[in-house]
Amino acid sequence: MTVANGRKMSSKTENLEKGDYVVSGFRAGAVAAGIKKRGGLDLALILSEKEAIGAGVFTTNKVKAAPVIVSEEHLRDGKVRAIIANSGNANACTGAQGLTNAKDMAEIVAKELGIEPHQVLVASTGVIGAQIDMSLVSRSIGDLANALSAEGLLQALEGIMTTDSFPKIARFKGSAGGKPYSIVGIAKGAGMIMPQMATMLCFLLTDINIGLPDLKRALSLSVEKTFNRITVDGDTSTNDTVLVMANGMAGNGIMDSTDEEGFRGGLTKVMYDLATMIVRDGEGATKLIHVHVLGAASSSDALTAARTISNSPLVKTAFYGQDPNWGRIMAALGRSGVEMKQEEVEIFVDRVKIVEKGVGMGPDQEKEAAECMKNKEFSVTVDIRQGGYEDHVITCDFSHEYVSINADYRT
Amino acid sequence: MTVANGRKMSSKTENLEKGDYVVSGFRAGAVAAGIKKRGGLDLALILSEKEAIGAGVFTTNKVKAAPVIVSEEHLRDGKVRAIIANSGNANACTGAQGLTNAKDMAEIVAKELGIEPHQVLVASTGVIGAQIDMSLVSRSIGDLANALSAEGLLQALEGIMTTDSFPKIARFKGSAGGKPYSIVGIAKGAGMIMPQMATMLCFLLTDINIGLPDLKRALSLSVEKTFNRITVDGDTSTNDTVLVMANGMAGNGIMDSTDEEGFRGGLTKVMYDLATMIVRDGEGATKLIHVHVLGAASSSDALTAARTISNSPLVKTAFYGQDPNWGRIMAALGRSGVEMKQEEVEIFVDRVKIVEKGVGMGPDQEKEAAECMKNKEFSVTVDIRQGGYEDHVITCDFSHEYVSINADYRT
Repeated sequence: MTVANGRKMSSKTENLEKGDYVVSGFRAGAVAAGIKKRGGLDLALILSEKEAIGAGVFTTNKVKAAPVIVSEEHLRDGKVRAIIANSGNANACTGAQGLTNAKDMAEIVAKELGIEPHQVLVASTGVIGAQIDMSLVSRSIGDLANALSAEGLLQALEGIMTTDSFPKIARFKGSAGGKPYSIVGIAKGAGMIMPQMATMLCFLLTDINIGLPDLKRALSLSVEKTFNRITVDGDTSTNDTVLVMANGMAGNGIMDSTDEEGFRGGLTKVMYDLATMIVRDGEGATKLIHVHVLGAASSSDALTAARTISNSPLVKTAFYGQDPNWGRIMAALGRSGVEMKQEEVEIFVDRVKIVEKGVGMGPDQEKEAAECMKNKEFSVTVDIRQGGYEDHVITCDFSHEYVSINADYRT
Repeated sequence: MTVANGRKMSSKTENLEKGDYVVSGFRAGAVAAGIKKRGGLDLALILSEKEAIGAGVFTTNKVKAAPVIVSEEHLRDGKVRAIIANSGNANACTGAQGLTNAKDMAEIVAKELGIEPHQVLVASTGVIGAQIDMSLVSRSIGDLANALSAEGLLQALEGIMTTDSFPKIARFKGSAGGKPYSIVGIAKGAGMIMPQMATMLCFLLTDINIGLPDLKRALSLSVEKTFNRITVDGDTSTNDTVLVMANGMAGNGIMDSTDEEGFRGGLTKVMYDLATMIVRDGEGATKLIHVHVLGAASSSDALTAARTISNSPLVKTAFYGQDPNWGRIMAALGRSGVEMKQEEVEIFVDRVKIVEKGVGMGPDQEKEAAECMKNKEFSVTVDIRQGGYEDHVITCDFSHEYVSINADYRT
């Protein structure tokens, strides 16, 4: 049990009902292979009983971990059977040996399960710059294959967690062509990046029968609305990976446009829930803040403004201090480079207006806003009043604990 | 006396020799007008006995404080007599009333001294969003005029300091046309921005006789190399102001190209010294780090890479932890978007190479690098090996104290 956000939280999945997260035709499991120095489950496997289609979205960081490179390659034809993932080692900045190791992970799984290596996706999370001891993987693969079960997804989730203080899993049930289908997603991450020991990983499973182009489009639209709208520290990991597998076991005819909106909505909901959990579990975070920008002159202005405010250390420390310090929000907006006139800006904390026409509304409103900021979750809305575009970024505060975690980790 | 960087530091100028900072033809002084809530000198004035030429560089933040707008306007013809500056109130985000107040500050000074209002520059630093009580300025102007003296620059410096834990002053002596001249600069700031109570201000005085275009060019070149190459928290203030006044009292003929390089070098030296002092006094900073980027494919790539590394919260907390956590540096470089191949990157701490061909050199080198990082000042050099461009940004670490200062300030 670890303490986060002032509450006792369990990093285990014991309070979740494993039967709730079964998706037809998928089996999963994890073993303790010894990769994680402090022990515990660290090698997870997800298998689709039949060939599934798959899609992925990966880090935009130019420094890409070996498993990211291998998974991108293995997704080229969109046909997948399995995901092998380890925690305790990111296999990033590991050179040619690291790439060989990532490929070997797929080979070892494929040989054990009698499937094609290029249909195995690979993901890793943990320390940067160290090689994975591949003998640990070889030695554990038999046990891992035996551990696979329809109800094993919670175990797989535990196998990919590192500094996470609670398990991140979400689901959606919809219907397509009159047949019910499920989407279940698992994720790990307590920050957009903690390159020495963690990254953001998300695996999504669905039994819907869907065309590959539709799946890819739905995934990238959902990523854009969810994982690309959260921030803990403004850094982007070398290992960020979102994978989706759809095996068609729901038995709907191939999904058509009638059901497209429902599926996209469901996928986005699952990913939004997971993304929000990651921010809530942000390193040292005590609060979750929705930063809304309204009235921007363009969609890119809306996003730029929301991101700049959400990443400003001064704004984030003020959130931590429960201080409606709107001068810092104005300054962040001003340096973001978006089209604006300071005398037109309005700022709200939840529904309390604290800035009108670029100037403060006075101590009474600030006091009321400070009350809202005592909650674990609140919103900051900045209306630039230049146009009709808006965006929304979810961030957390910046605490002493963040500095402790990141200054003390390796040494 | 306040404690910063583990040393007792004085926010006063008592250990400095005021005679060292006299520039012919300038007088300065400060009074306690009552603008700063906690008392102390807070209204400073610098006067050139004869008309000087002046130039300024101001914040790029689109949210500009009222005194920034007024000073830009008053610099239009390049002829100046005085700078009036207050601490304790930034006069930022104060609307039309704030602009009137900034203009009135110039008027009050001009009337008292019998000079033109448009030859008075105005600068303010302190809390955002509150109006300056102008009666405090009117009431103090007589005393302030009486306080002016040739040796009064240290007093003026104290008048503009806020959270600064030590005074920032630097000088250079050169000669032009066979005549000796001085450049003296004063600055305040303990971060690129702390919008509720501080900003970066720098005033430079010289008695050289120089043409306005030459002065402007020298100033902008020097700003580019000095203040535009430092960061504390990646934020940019609404009030940042660098002003230079040259009164020609050195008696050189108007400066020609023979002496141009010397003057530019001297101005850059004074500003570099002041810029470095600001980072050293960065909020909560315990270390000063020179981030050098070599081998970039373009000059903008070099600067972007150096800035991204210098602003990464994860890199800065690792600096605080004295941890040569190169994975974080690689990840910051990778997300900066610059042209690079991870397998070609080299990273050094001082002269210790910790990364070669994108992979770590092992624990011995890291241990040696960690030793270097125990010093109060060290360098990190990242060689991208893509081209011939380089740049250099000076940053500080990110400590618990930074969070304390910024979470606790207003509330």
